[in-house]
Amino acid sequence: MVASGFGSAILIGTAVLSLPIATESGERAPFVDALFTATSAVCVTGLVTVDTGQYWSTFGEVVILALIQVGGLGIMTLATLFAILVSGRLGLRTQLIAQAETKTARLRDVPHLVRNVVLFNVGSEVVIATILSVRFFTGYDMPLGEAVYDGVFHAISAFNNAGFSVYSDSLMGFVSDPWITLTVAIAFIVGGIGFPVAFELARSWRRPRTWSVLTRITLAVTVPLLVIGTVVIGLTEFSNPGTLGPLDDQGKFLAAFFASATARTAGFNSIDVAAMHPESWLFTDLLMFIGGGSAGTAGGIKVTTLGLLALVIWAELRGESKVNVARRRVPESTQRQALAIGLLSVGLVAVVTMVLMHLSPHRLDQVMFEVVSAFGTVGLSTGITADLPRSGHVLIIVLMFVGRIGPLTLFSALALRERARLFEYPEERTIVG
Amino acid sequence: MVASGFGSAILIGTAVLSLPIATESGERAPFVDALFTATSAVCVTGLVTVDTGQYWSTFGEVVILALIQVGGLGIMTLATLFAILVSGRLGLRTQLIAQAETKTARLRDVPHLVRNVVLFNVGSEVVIATILSVRFFTGYDMPLGEAVYDGVFHAISAFNNAGFSVYSDSLMGFVSDPWITLTVAIAFIVGGIGFPVAFELARSWRRPRTWSVLTRITLAVTVPLLVIGTVVIGLTEFSNPGTLGPLDDQGKFLAAFFASATARTAGFNSIDVAAMHPESWLFTDLLMFIGGGSAGTAGGIKVTTLGLLALVIWAELRGESKVNVARRRVPESTQRQALAIGLLSVGLVAVVTMVLMHLSPHRLDQVMFEVVSAFGTVGLSTGITADLPRSGHVLIIVLMFVGRIGPLTLFSALALRERARLFEYPEERTIVG
Ligand SMILES: [K+]
Ligand SMILES: [K+]
Repeated sequence: MVASGFGSAILIGTAVLSLPIATESGERAPFVDALFTATSAVCVTGLVTVDTGQYWSTFGEVVILALIQVGGLGIMTLATLFAILVSGRLGLRTQLIAQAETKTARLRDVPHLVRNVVLFNVGSEVVIATILSVRFFTGYDMPLGEAVYDGVFHAISAFNNAGFSVYSDSLMGFVSDPWITLTVAIAFIVGGIGFPVAFELARSWRRPRTWSVLTRITLAVTVPLLVIGTVVIGLTEFSNPGTLGPLDDQGKFLAAFFASATARTAGFNSIDVAAMHPESWLFTDLLMFIGGGSAGTAGGIKVTTLGLLALVIWAELRGESKVNVARRRVPESTQRQALAIGLLSVGLVAVVTMVLMHLSPHRLDQVMFEVVSAFGTVGLSTGITADLPRSGHVLIIVLMFVGRIGPLTLFSALALRERARLFEYPEERTIVG
Repeated sequence: MVASGFGSAILIGTAVLSLPIATESGERAPFVDALFTATSAVCVTGLVTVDTGQYWSTFGEVVILALIQVGGLGIMTLATLFAILVSGRLGLRTQLIAQAETKTARLRDVPHLVRNVVLFNVGSEVVIATILSVRFFTGYDMPLGEAVYDGVFHAISAFNNAGFSVYSDSLMGFVSDPWITLTVAIAFIVGGIGFPVAFELARSWRRPRTWSVLTRITLAVTVPLLVIGTVVIGLTEFSNPGTLGPLDDQGKFLAAFFASATARTAGFNSIDVAAMHPESWLFTDLLMFIGGGSAGTAGGIKVTTLGLLALVIWAELRGESKVNVARRRVPESTQRQALAIGLLSVGLVAVVTMVLMHLSPHRLDQVMFEVVSAFGTVGLSTGITADLPRSGHVLIIVLMFVGRIGPLTLFSALALRERARLFEYPEERTIVG
């Protein structure tokens, strides 16, 4: 159902982008480019085979923007709905839907929930678009119409973690401008943290003791990852003349923070990704693979998955027989779901990387970066996207799709049904390691 | 205790290899080369900064062989002892030590167990050395003395999964000779499958229903991995002029099988690793990371760890609330131990790869191959080992050591103590993915 919804949006988008009116040149776009762009937009990835600003007409750009909005809103709504469906166990439902009078009236709640998600989404975008437009207008001498258009485009693209930009060099022209880069970063961090967490924080940010496990884990992973990412990228790229080297200290900090935050799904870049050291690419691979929060516009395996796996390991290292967090016990099935999502994702990335290396002449560092970026719906690239063979483009299209809906559908499929055996086998230990 | 035992052996080996008599030229070997070689030998890795046959004298080679035998026998004995220590749960103890009259007489059993391990080790080596020596003597016109020396050297190196060879091109001169490559492959597969499993198979290979969970998982992962490895390497390298291309069909099969098997810790090569496609390197990385059986001479995270993680995922995909294998339930703590070993190993390899990329000018595909090879004590290399800076050599030395004793000590530390809480927190589900 989820797959067919996203699939339909992509097919409609492909059809519209195939109209001659959608391109700047007035010529019909090749099918694979239209399909790639539509998939990238609906899956809010941001990888492109053609330059968004130069290749597509204003009509084409508006279509892309509409696909981003549909895709981002769709994934946020669906993921939140799934969260509600397992809500008896989630403890989130009563907070998300305060109006619900009985615990069984679920279908009635849906319109209310969707309204909340839309309000959150559109409301945030209006605020961000306003800030960006004002800055474009006052700081960069843009005509008012262009400033508003660019502000709206980047607001929608940022909040939905899409990473599409009408500028050929993404946000590299604003690398030292905190008005632009910080606003965009806050937009994609809030959008990527997920609706239930954002909702809970907005409601009860003064009462951290009441926070759900979801919110605690999300924050406990997101904040350290932002800090570690900024430090590591800041150190490795410090004197790289192609990236942080030419910037002053404040600019270095801002650019390193942006590079760290954007890797966790957003996909904009304020420094030249192609010029980064290969060890920074590898580090970025890890950030892109992890991604953002559940039930938001972020991709990857999600910070909740990583956080749970870390909790399991921590419990085992301490010799605890149960995995506890904030005086709550994490059920074994949830632990296993995190493991399944994490390991199957590693396997998927490994296999696709091998196949793409076979199909293209590029090196492991670049191919793996491209594959993880597509899987995590990030959209950063070392610059090989357009050069890939057609078969590689098709592979990336499939991977963007699977990366977008895979973890969510896998989790919900696992969480929504559980079978109980009426008997238990005797235990037998084995050794590992 | 384990670390200090291995550490002492490495230091003694370094001291002896630093004697002028140990080198062919009669000059004192540089400290880092002696330390690197001693560590590689004791940890049965096989990575080398200098050519074993050309750089070291016969005395030096015999020292290396002694270090390999001490290291291989040491790890096999210690790992088997640890298996016994958790034996009430393992169900292995009564099979391994049939003479033990009471369940508590553990200290008494140790000499008997060590004798069994030594008999298994030395007995197998004698058989392998005989086959290899006869073949060297009859098939390659070697003088008898040289044939016996080379046969003994490769038998000990193979059974202990050390991967050291007195030939500069490892076993590439015998790529199409099944007498050599199959004998060596069987040697390192048997040595790498682990003493408890080999013992159980030898005792009751006719009664598979009585096999322990350890034996079942080990076989259920080892056999498919050998088959998949042969097929994938055979397909990707089929027409590569530098590797399988020039061989006939039987030679291709033999070489692909050998390349698949050797990656799982042995470290010999019968085709040119440097000439393999980068996608084959990546695939080999996966095989090297997995490694062989627990309680043998193999390295990596071990097939048991991978098998358990796969079982956990399979149970979750099927909606089972418990993880069962062969009518036995796998305890949650064992599942968590497998997860801890797997994920901490991934983290270690990722961090060391990033640091080594920072220290050296090599590409990700080559650096990652080197790092996984050192972690898994494999010893295969794309050829960059000698070129690494001194700091890189030191890093690899540390990694070989950690890769050798890390998983075993981590597992035993976790398995031998478990704390029970007297109360349980209420459950709270969270979403992942
Ligand atoms: K993106
Ligand atoms: K080895």
